[in-house]
Amino acid sequence: MKKVLIYDSILRDGAQAKGISFSVEDKLKIVEKLDSIGVAYIEAGNPGSNPKDLEFFERVKKINLKHSKVIAFGSTRRVNKPVEEDANVKSLLKADTPAIAIFGKSWGFQVTEILKTTLDENLSMIRDTIAFFKNKNKEVVFDAEHFFDGYKADPEYAIKTLRAASEGGADSLCLCDTNGGTFPDEIYEITSRVVKEFKEDIGIHCHNDTGMAVANSIMAVKAGAVQVQGTMNGYGERIGNANLTTIIPNLQLKDEYSCILEDSISEFTTTSKYISEIANVLHDERAPYVGNFAFAHKAGMHADAVNKNPTAYEHIAPETVGNERVFLMSEVAGRSALLNFVNSFDKSITRDSPETKVILEKLKEMEFKGYQYEGAESSLELIIRKILGKYKPHFDLGEFKVLVNEPSISKANSSAIIKINVDGQQEMTADEGDGPVNALDNALRKALERFYPQIKDMKLTDYKVRVLDSSSATAAKVRVLIESTDGKEVWTTIGVSTDIIEASWQALVDSIEYKLIEEK
Amino acid sequence: MKKVLIYDSILRDGAQAKGISFSVEDKLKIVEKLDSIGVAYIEAGNPGSNPKDLEFFERVKKINLKHSKVIAFGSTRRVNKPVEEDANVKSLLKADTPAIAIFGKSWGFQVTEILKTTLDENLSMIRDTIAFFKNKNKEVVFDAEHFFDGYKADPEYAIKTLRAASEGGADSLCLCDTNGGTFPDEIYEITSRVVKEFKEDIGIHCHNDTGMAVANSIMAVKAGAVQVQGTMNGYGERIGNANLTTIIPNLQLKDEYSCILEDSISEFTTTSKYISEIANVLHDERAPYVGNFAFAHKAGMHADAVNKNPTAYEHIAPETVGNERVFLMSEVAGRSALLNFVNSFDKSITRDSPETKVILEKLKEMEFKGYQYEGAESSLELIIRKILGKYKPHFDLGEFKVLVNEPSISKANSSAIIKINVDGQQEMTADEGDGPVNALDNALRKALERFYPQIKDMKLTDYKVRVLDSSSATAAKVRVLIESTDGKEVWTTIGVSTDIIEASWQALVDSIEYKLIEEK
Repeated sequence: MKKVLIYDSILRDGAQAKGISFSVEDKLKIVEKLDSIGVAYIEAGNPGSNPKDLEFFERVKKINLKHSKVIAFGSTRRVNKPVEEDANVKSLLKADTPAIAIFGKSWGFQVTEILKTTLDENLSMIRDTIAFFKNKNKEVVFDAEHFFDGYKADPEYAIKTLRAASEGGADSLCLCDTNGGTFPDEIYEITSRVVKEFKEDIGIHCHNDTGMAVANSIMAVKAGAVQVQGTMNGYGERIGNANLTTIIPNLQLKDEYSCILEDSISEFTTTSKYISEIANVLHDERAPYVGNFAFAHKAGMHADAVNKNPTAYEHIAPETVGNERVFLMSEVAGRSALLNFVNSFDKSITRDSPETKVILEKLKEMEFKGYQYEGAESSLELIIRKILGKYKPHFDLGEFKVLVNEPSISKANSSAIIKINVDGQQEMTADEGDGPVNALDNALRKALERFYPQIKDMKLTDYKVRVLDSSSATAAKVRVLIESTDGKEVWTTIGVSTDIIEASWQALVDSIEYKLIEEK
Repeated sequence: MKKVLIYDSILRDGAQAKGISFSVEDKLKIVEKLDSIGVAYIEAGNPGSNPKDLEFFERVKKINLKHSKVIAFGSTRRVNKPVEEDANVKSLLKADTPAIAIFGKSWGFQVTEILKTTLDENLSMIRDTIAFFKNKNKEVVFDAEHFFDGYKADPEYAIKTLRAASEGGADSLCLCDTNGGTFPDEIYEITSRVVKEFKEDIGIHCHNDTGMAVANSIMAVKAGAVQVQGTMNGYGERIGNANLTTIIPNLQLKDEYSCILEDSISEFTTTSKYISEIANVLHDERAPYVGNFAFAHKAGMHADAVNKNPTAYEHIAPETVGNERVFLMSEVAGRSALLNFVNSFDKSITRDSPETKVILEKLKEMEFKGYQYEGAESSLELIIRKILGKYKPHFDLGEFKVLVNEPSISKANSSAIIKINVDGQQEMTADEGDGPVNALDNALRKALERFYPQIKDMKLTDYKVRVLDSSSATAAKVRVLIESTDGKEVWTTIGVSTDIIEASWQALVDSIEYKLIEEK
C-alpha cells in the first residue's frame, strides 16, 4: 500500500459553497471527526479574511489531535511590501498552527491582470513568504493557484513559481486546477513532469467545473502526487471541490493506496452524513459510495440478478463503506423487489398469488397521484396489509378544525379541535401548538392516549415537505414525509395533497397506525 | 471538428433512477427536445419489459424527427431458443424503429452465474440475434454489458463477444462499464485496443459509481470511441449514468469535437432545466455548466477578481451555455458582491459608507435566524431599502385568522379572515382556498386590490418549503420561498418561522411589497 496524504479543506473552501456557513462549534466538531478517521491535514480557515476564525484557532489548540495537522491558509505577502509587515502574514502566524498553506499565482495573466505586478515580483512574493514561515519552523504547503491554466499558457513560468517555492523551503508543492477546466490526460502529463523535476512532495487540488475533479485527482496520484486536497462531500465554491468521500474509497478500496485509517472506511457513510448534518445541507443521495442511492436497484432485471449474486450490479459490497443495498419499490421495480418486501411481513404471498397483481396495480395508481414509497415503506406496508386483510384501522376521524391567529397571544398561535372514534367510543379534545401541524399532532395524540397508552413512547423525529408541481404556487400539490421512532424502531410515512395540513394529517395517521400494528 | 454521435438513454436508463417515472406524454416531449438539439440516437425503452412503451412507439412514429433516430432496446434471444420465436425479439420488431440496441453479456461470470449457460451459447445468442435484425434491415448497436469487468477477468472472451456481434453484422459496438467501477486509465487502454481491432464504430457507456463516468467517457473518446451513451442530467440507476449535460460541453466547447447542433449549446441550460421539469426532480444546482451554482461566486476575493476579469475564476463564459454569473449574498461574500447588489438600486452607497456596515451586520443576524438571501434577493432588497430609508410599507396587518375543516364541505377546506390598514383606512375581508396558505393568499389580495389595483397583474408561480432543523419534527423551523411574476419581471421572496403559515405570510407580504415599490 502506498501512502496518500489526505488534505481536507471543507472548513475553508467548503464554506465558500452556496448555503454553507460554519459556526466555531461546527468547525471544532468537524476537526475532531476528520482527526478520528486519519485525515493528514485539515485546512481550517484564512485568519486574515475572517475574524471568526481567530476564536476557532484559539480553541482548536486545546484539542489533542491524534492524526491530523491543522493548517492556516493565506496568500503570499502583498506586492512590494516587506513580508514581516504584512497584516495577512501576521494573522497567519497568530493562528499558531503547526503547518501553513501559502497560495500564490502560477499563471502570468493573473499576476499582470489581477495582482497588477511584474512576473519577477510575483516570484519574490512566493519565495519570501515561504522562507519567512520556514524560519518560524512551520511546515509549509505551497498552493500553486491556477497552476494548470498557467502551465498551458506558459509552462516555463509556471515551473518557475514552483522553483521559487522550493527555494523558499516549501515542504510540499500543490498543483491547483483552480477554475476546474483541465482534462484528466493533461493533469496526468503535467503532474508527471513536475514529479520528475522536484524533490518535494507533490499535491493536487481540483475543482469540479467539468465534472472531472475526482478523476483528475486520481490521475495525478497515478502520475506520482502524494497529497490530495479536496473536501468531504465535495462542498466548495461553484460546482464544488474534488470530493474526498469518493476519492478515498476509489484509492483505498479499488487501488493500492492507503489514505485514512483502515477501520474508519467501514463507517464512511455515517461520517459523510454527519458532515452533511453539521453543514446543514441535504445529504447528496446520488453521491458515489455514501449516497442513499449508491446501491439502490430499481430495474426488475437488475434486482433479480443482485438477488442471485450482488457483484452482478455492484462494484463493491455496500457494507465495505457502511452503506446498504436497497430495492426500490416502484411500478418498474418488478415483482422480485416487491415480493422481497411483502414477504418481510407475509411469507404466504408468492410471485403468482392473485394479491401480487392487485398490489402492483395499487402501487401504480398511488404513484400516479404523487405518492412515492421509496423511503416511506411504512405507509406502503399499511396499504398492502389492507389489501391482504391483515390490518384494520385503530381509530376513525370524526372531524378536526384548526385555527391560526396572527398576531398570536402566546408562542402557540394555532389550536386544533379533534373528534375521533375508537370501537364506538367517541373522544373529543383540543390542544395548541406552534403552527397548525404541530397543534394537530398534539391534539391527535392527546385524544388517542386514553385508548393506546403505548403511543406515549413514540415521537416524530423528522418532517419534510416537498412541493410536487410548483407551477400552481400556493395551491400546488405537496408531499409530506414524517419520520417517527419509539426508541427501538424508526419508520417513515407519507401524505400527499394540495393542502399541507391534509398531507401532514395522512402522514401523522399512518405513523400512529404503523406503531399500533401488534403482530409486527 | 471530429464528429461524436450522442446516444441518450434517459427514457430507459434514466427511468431507472429513484423517483423518476415518465408518462407517454413526457417521453414524447423529451424525444422532440432531444431531436431539436441534434442528439443522434434516442434510446426510448424496452418494449418487452414495459407494455406502456408499446403505446409510446406507436405514437413516436408519427413525429417527424429531423436529427435523431429512435432506438428500441432489448436483450439477446433466450438460452437455447430459436431467435424468431423469442417474445422479446418479437416485441422489439413490433416497436418498428429504424435502429435497435441489443445487449449481451461480455463477462464470463455473468454468463455462467446469472444466465446459467455456456460461454459458446452466449456467443451464439449475440450473433444470432444481431443477424436476425440485420436481415430485417435495422441499424444495430451491440451493447456489450459488463465489457470492462469482463475484459479485466478474461480479455480474450470479452473480445470474442464483440467478434460475435461483428459477425452478426452489428453497425456499432458499445463498451459498457455497467457497474461503474472502472478507472479512466483502464478505459483508455482497453478502448484503444478495441478501436484498433474492429472496423465498426465503437461506443462507450459509463455509470457513475466511482464518480468518474464523465472522465471515463472523455478518455474513451480520446482513445477513438465515436459514440457516447449517457443521459441528459445524468439520471440513471444507483448513482446515475454518464451525464451528457457535462460531456457535451466538455467535448464541444473545450475540445475539438462536434456533438450536437452548434446553435443549441447557447440554450443548453434551459434544455437541461426543461428535462428536470419533465422528470419532476429538482434541477441539480451543482451540475457543471447548467447548474445554478456553476458560475456562483461567494468568496470575497474571488468576487473581486471576477469583477476585474471573469476568466480569473471561470473556465468558460457562462452565457456560452445559456447560464449566468451570480454573486452570492452572504456574510462571507464580502463587501464587493454586496455593493454590486446595493448599487443596482442605490448608486450613492460606497464601500466606506456607514450604511454598508449596518447592512452587513443585518445580513449576518438574519442568516443566523435561518434566512438565506441567495436566491431571494427581493426580500434582501426590501431589508436594505428599509435601512437606507428608501422604503415604507404599503399596508399594516391588523390581524388574520385561518380556519381549516376536515372533512371539508367543498374543495376549499380552508378559510381566512383578514384585517389590514392602508393610510389609516381599514379593510376587513375573508376568502377561502385549498389549504390555509392558499386561503390567506386569496384573502390578502382581495383586501389590497381596492387600494392597489396593479396587484391584479401579479401571480405566484412557485412555492417551496424547506425544513431547516428537522430534529424537532412538526415544530421544526421551515423556510418558505415564493416566486412571483407580473408578466414582465420575476422575483423571489423568503419567510422563516417554526410555523409554516407565518413563514408563508412573510414571503407573501414581501412579494406584494416588492411589486409595489414604485421607483424600481
